[in-house]
Amino acid sequence: MKNYDVIIIGGGPSGIIAGVTGKKQNPEKSFLMIKEEAKGLIPCGIPYIFHDLGEVGKNMMGPKPFIDAGGEVVVDQVIAIDLETKTLTTMNNRKFIYQKLVFATGSIPIVPTFIPGYELDGVEYIIKSYDYIEKLKTRTDAAKNIVVIGGGFIGVEMAEQLSKFEDKVVTLVEMEKCCLFRAFSKDIAEKADEAIRETGIILKTGCKVTEIIGKDNKVTAVKLSDGSVTIADMVITSIGYKPNTGLAKTAGLPLNEHNAIIIDRYMRTPQMDVFAVGDCSQKTGFITGRTDNIMLASTATAEARILGYNLFSITLLRNFAGTLSVFSTKIGKVAFASAGAIEQSAQQAGIGYVIGRFEDVDKHPGTLQDTSKMLVKLTVSPENRAIIGGEIVGGCSTGEMINVIALAIQKNVTVFEFIAFQVGTHPLLTTAPTKSLLIKAAENAIAKLRK
Amino acid sequence: MKNYDVIIIGGGPSGIIAGVTGKKQNPEKSFLMIKEEAKGLIPCGIPYIFHDLGEVGKNMMGPKPFIDAGGEVVVDQVIAIDLETKTLTTMNNRKFIYQKLVFATGSIPIVPTFIPGYELDGVEYIIKSYDYIEKLKTRTDAAKNIVVIGGGFIGVEMAEQLSKFEDKVVTLVEMEKCCLFRAFSKDIAEKADEAIRETGIILKTGCKVTEIIGKDNKVTAVKLSDGSVTIADMVITSIGYKPNTGLAKTAGLPLNEHNAIIIDRYMRTPQMDVFAVGDCSQKTGFITGRTDNIMLASTATAEARILGYNLFSITLLRNFAGTLSVFSTKIGKVAFASAGAIEQSAQQAGIGYVIGRFEDVDKHPGTLQDTSKMLVKLTVSPENRAIIGGEIVGGCSTGEMINVIALAIQKNVTVFEFIAFQVGTHPLLTTAPTKSLLIKAAENAIAKLRK
Repeated sequence: MKNYDVIIIGGGPSGIIAGVTGKKQNPEKSFLMIKEEAKGLIPCGIPYIFHDLGEVGKNMMGPKPFIDAGGEVVVDQVIAIDLETKTLTTMNNRKFIYQKLVFATGSIPIVPTFIPGYELDGVEYIIKSYDYIEKLKTRTDAAKNIVVIGGGFIGVEMAEQLSKFEDKVVTLVEMEKCCLFRAFSKDIAEKADEAIRETGIILKTGCKVTEIIGKDNKVTAVKLSDGSVTIADMVITSIGYKPNTGLAKTAGLPLNEHNAIIIDRYMRTPQMDVFAVGDCSQKTGFITGRTDNIMLASTATAEARILGYNLFSITLLRNFAGTLSVFSTKIGKVAFASAGAIEQSAQQAGIGYVIGRFEDVDKHPGTLQDTSKMLVKLTVSPENRAIIGGEIVGGCSTGEMINVIALAIQKNVTVFEFIAFQVGTHPLLTTAPTKSLLIKAAENAIAKLRK
Repeated sequence: MKNYDVIIIGGGPSGIIAGVTGKKQNPEKSFLMIKEEAKGLIPCGIPYIFHDLGEVGKNMMGPKPFIDAGGEVVVDQVIAIDLETKTLTTMNNRKFIYQKLVFATGSIPIVPTFIPGYELDGVEYIIKSYDYIEKLKTRTDAAKNIVVIGGGFIGVEMAEQLSKFEDKVVTLVEMEKCCLFRAFSKDIAEKADEAIRETGIILKTGCKVTEIIGKDNKVTAVKLSDGSVTIADMVITSIGYKPNTGLAKTAGLPLNEHNAIIIDRYMRTPQMDVFAVGDCSQKTGFITGRTDNIMLASTATAEARILGYNLFSITLLRNFAGTLSVFSTKIGKVAFASAGAIEQSAQQAGIGYVIGRFEDVDKHPGTLQDTSKMLVKLTVSPENRAIIGGEIVGGCSTGEMINVIALAIQKNVTVFEFIAFQVGTHPLLTTAPTKSLLIKAAENAIAKLRK
């Protein structure tokens, strides 16, 4: 039986960052990470293993920074926790005692048990496991007709990568009107659908898989709600993830309606000295104020960093409990990003808003080569004029530009402050200073506010 | 004699934006712009005319948005102003009466009269004039050995563009230890020098041109302070710009030590109803609090926008008078950007600071193709922990990423807030969430603050 000041269960991004940050802040304390697999994957890089990276070994992420900082790592699985005696028991029957315990157990794919045939051979998932993904890569390489169920980020990115193989026919099925409908408002999501279709993917939106058909226990086709049948030798299901909280539940920690471990703004569970962070823990919408099930490595690591500073005493104050979701992706050559409240999330949360909008290009003059079209939408609160959300479609700068909006939301910047904002511009790197997209979108919102 | 509610002298970025914004805010008022040339250029696009764009016609910018908004434009030159009677007289002997007058007369190149031979044929300038640049383009196309004097942004960008012609030998002479030394601290400026040398430019830093040598009144060579002589059939001088304020001075407006028109935080001159904006007007360092001579279209347009809202009454409040310089450029494939106080500007202004620093790549995993190295430096105030400046070297997202830092400076964001900042990340668009460059640089600064 070994004693540790801090034990972290899980070796994904939130576990690593909580460990590294915590250990660096408290070099005198002993830290242990217990993770189930020796090798780890960069979660958001998984789709790119299937084409752009070409092999699972190019997408590895491990606890090296944590070990370098002085942490210890054990590959094993925690199977029981006694919160009273602060004791963990593992699969290999090791026992560890903690002073502080951090759940960073992540999330697992939702299995579509409601689709007949879901258990057939050839129905696959995107599981954040090195060994699983390594095998899946070999299988997808051999597959010809692939149906992806679910047009969220993982589904879209998987389909996009697989569509780059000329010999594969990829069909993507999404039940909403558009793909990525959780992250983008309708007109932006429609542009994403266009970009998806341009890659050669057969996209079926507003459509459900009603049955997965097989022969000799192997997938042969899928039946869709529009009555059509699509031949398939592989089905990749990506209909969402759920918090991996079986262990926490068994231990007696309270979960919320999404099965996430209930925490406060400092990632503390109601149980003294027990914390939870990342996908397994409760998320509260930054703008909406409601519990949410946002699962993003960027969110997980931001929260893990705060936890790392605050494990032994609250030194890094945080006067909000909100998770600001900042999404970004790239489909073909077009990048899409969003942050905070978009139209439908504002509507669902009963938040009033006006939209500011501006379209231009990402270089200036637009006659330069390799110029990408760019569109910015800002969601603005009509009374206090604060920017509460934003969306961008554009080129390679989209992923950082959304962070300007993300910071503006987190600092309660109003559209009036924003139009006086001094931005940097350069012909080869941004749009022109006379029509800076963010500022023009803010001006557009102001014009609407005054009507 | 015609009366206008607002007359703007100058048709560059600040004139256009002041005009468009002002007219949109006050559609019932009459607006006139008086500009000297019919055709206008995008100022920061000028270097790219010489190679990437290929012709001056691809870099045009005109007052169309102002005309579309209902403004009038006259091509003429104001030669006299009577502030008492509010009357302007032009070269073509027209007279106009204004209620409000805006100087947006921009800047003109500094002529190196201290270099013997500066008046020879073949010594050229980068003048923001369509006709001049059109002729210069023809001349540079014919030139073979070109010496550029001055390694500021315009000089570096001109040299970089000309170096793309295989038949030209381009020499760049800068008297400071490094090029771009005003915008970047030493280690970053050294990286810029490396990037310059990689383009094939012969770079001579810490070196002055002591004489321009000619034959038959035409440039043939330049003599340098290191004793060497470089053959040249063309010399492009870009040693800086000065406010174009001869007219304002004659009219009796007070100028500061940089010959810029003195203004307050609302761009008001001491003379009632007379404003000045852009390069011709006074700049105060946002962080340093001192008058400065920053000339950036992005700054000029930000200030013009504020003026546009406030021409007839102050509706857009501004509780600072500072000009935050946000610089960016691209040399070969490497982008460089900075915002606010860098090491030497903090030192010169007597501001204490610590530097946070982090280096990684702009995609994740770094095994992805077309990944660029990326380096972030943050300048942090040691007492209040606010971010007061930053520098970035990287790929195509650099130009927008610097705007995250720019917003952080303008909103007084501390490094502690910054490390809890929720950023968006994506494999193809940004570094990994576990090592977000901005956040890791902030953490590095915190570690130093605690020592």
